Amino acid sequence: MPQDTSTHRRIVLAARPHGLPTTQDFRLDHAPLPSPGEGEVLLRTLYLSLDPYMRNLMDEAGTEYAPGLELGQPMMGGTVSRVVSSRHAGFQPGELVLGSAGWQDYAVAAGDTLTTLGDLAQPSLALGGLGMTGFTAYVGLLDIGQPQPGETVVVAAATGAVGAVVGQIARLKGARVVGIAGGPDKCRHAVEELGFDACLDHRAPDLAGRLAAACPDGIDVYFENVGGAVLDAVLPSLNHHARVPVCGLVAHYNDDAPPPGPDRRPQLMAAVLQKRIRMQGFVILDHYADRFAAFREDMQAWLDAGRIILREDRVEGLENAPAAFIGLLQGRNLGKLVVRVAAD
Amino acid sequence: MPQDTSTHRRIVLAARPHGLPTTQDFRLDHAPLPSPGEGEVLLRTLYLSLDPYMRNLMDEAGTEYAPGLELGQPMMGGTVSRVVSSRHAGFQPGELVLGSAGWQDYAVAAGDTLTTLGDLAQPSLALGGLGMTGFTAYVGLLDIGQPQPGETVVVAAATGAVGAVVGQIARLKGARVVGIAGGPDKCRHAVEELGFDACLDHRAPDLAGRLAAACPDGIDVYFENVGGAVLDAVLPSLNHHARVPVCGLVAHYNDDAPPPGPDRRPQLMAAVLQKRIRMQGFVILDHYADRFAAFREDMQAWLDAGRIILREDRVEGLENAPAAFIGLLQGRNLGKLVVRVAAD
Repeated sequence: MPQDTSTHRRIVLAARPHGLPTTQDFRLDHAPLPSPGEGEVLLRTLYLSLDPYMRNLMDEAGTEYAPGLELGQPMMGGTVSRVVSSRHAGFQPGELVLGSAGWQDYAVAAGDTLTTLGDLAQPSLALGGLGMTGFTAYVGLLDIGQPQPGETVVVAAATGAVGAVVGQIARLKGARVVGIAGGPDKCRHAVEELGFDACLDHRAPDLAGRLAAACPDGIDVYFENVGGAVLDAVLPSLNHHARVPVCGLVAHYNDDAPPPGPDRRPQLMAAVLQKRIRMQGFVILDHYADRFAAFREDMQAWLDAGRIILREDRVEGLENAPAAFIGLLQGRNLGKLVVRVAAD
Repeated sequence: MPQDTSTHRRIVLAARPHGLPTTQDFRLDHAPLPSPGEGEVLLRTLYLSLDPYMRNLMDEAGTEYAPGLELGQPMMGGTVSRVVSSRHAGFQPGELVLGSAGWQDYAVAAGDTLTTLGDLAQPSLALGGLGMTGFTAYVGLLDIGQPQPGETVVVAAATGAVGAVVGQIARLKGARVVGIAGGPDKCRHAVEELGFDACLDHRAPDLAGRLAAACPDGIDVYFENVGGAVLDAVLPSLNHHARVPVCGLVAHYNDDAPPPGPDRRPQLMAAVLQKRIRMQGFVILDHYADRFAAFREDMQAWLDAGRIILREDRVEGLENAPAAFIGLLQGRNLGKLVVRVAAD
């Protein structure tokens, strides 16, 4: 895509969405090309990661790990970038780095916020299965879910970037794995390509009944990505001493206000009590120091042995990021969603 | 109380309550005195424990650990009893035993369901601080809550049988302890007698604001006995990585149906996720084999050293058990509620 050399493209927050965002909530603008200060580098974005947590950036309140943006600010996001110029001794022009350059063609970043990627065969995997989403699956499943051989693991958003890896790792650990996904094509993919034991379409009727039938020994680990109606269906089948890693709640990110009643909180608390459930939230940023090295080693070994498949859903062009992100919130992607911002 | 020797008194479930039970839901009847078979003993009830979980016995559904009774069945409950006659080699007439003889003057029990109590100075403590409720506080706080020195522990139902022990153990472990209780007298008791750092009356306005003020460093452990509005007030002050042992939900035991909206479950799940909260239900029956010996040793040492006070709320006479139990569900007791069924 031809561009002049003094400005670059950014996608900024144009309006705060109510419910599901629309493309009108984003604006593509042009900004002067930034120049790096001392200790900084100029980056050319190659791949941009799109992830559900970004919905929180669009609300004024935001969350601690996805703080609300000001209107007019570029959307944040993880990126694989090429170093264009460097005023940091640790980085040379041409190097490939992992950072958080956001939804834009170029960015300036402090060198110490970047990780050198070296010579990766498929650099975009650093945003997915070899990066944040794969790491999220690994920590949530193994450290919190702790599946044992022969146990049953249920994962919602089963063909998403996190869910697909959760299910495959759970299988490697000897668990029976039942996915929940939107539509028959995704469910077929989960079983035939990813090796899940079963996968249920949450759009078809009576998810609770079908889930109970698919989990004759009950559910020992429920990896929570979703909330809402899927959680309703899971609760009755949870076993005593079940573990529920809470990783995301994509069904609720578009809620403007608490949903109408009845109030399901007492019922959830009663299940936690009577079934001795351990429910634990986690935010992957907390775990890099302790667990990232172990994850990378394990995941690389599983990939090299062909024991895990990492599927990428790739969109071409920064200008298509808003529509792709909206589709992600609607569950339209299959695997990790990345935008190829520039040919390398 | 004079009785003939061929029948004895029992309190049976007369009707299923809707909401808070009334005395009409119970009936005092007379039944033939049972006689022990091989391996059984005849027990005279001395003390009957009254506990919130018993509300679940009155519903048809019940819970796994408090199964719904049939109408006309005697209410179940933990007891300290004297052995009257024995057809089990391990028990001699006159011995004091801990069992589950229920709301009645006499009962027959299999010997292997009984624990010999030996020569206790205050036998009723075996139902409270040295028994189930003290053990519940110990396991929930130490094994699940895991308070660290300098952390803040909040306990609801702070002057109840469990809450009073939770707070005192937390203080012994170096935590700052804030109780929540119903009314100024209870709060004064928690601070002046039990040594809590603060105690808030949940009946006064703006519990959330007062709790935030009383916990300037936030809440690290919330020991959940209650649910409902108290949980609403606690959630905003929970710290990252807070632990929430879920021991009871007395605010909801009288619910006939899920409360009206809004639906608070998504908000709870979002707090669990964003604050990396670990919430874990437990049922004390699971823990006797592993942890009861350690508890008894620690608790006896704390009692002997005067470091823990066990307050008992004692009601005289089996016939007064229903009213006392209804009062318990309304929070009228101070300390462990026991009924003295017979003078020893």
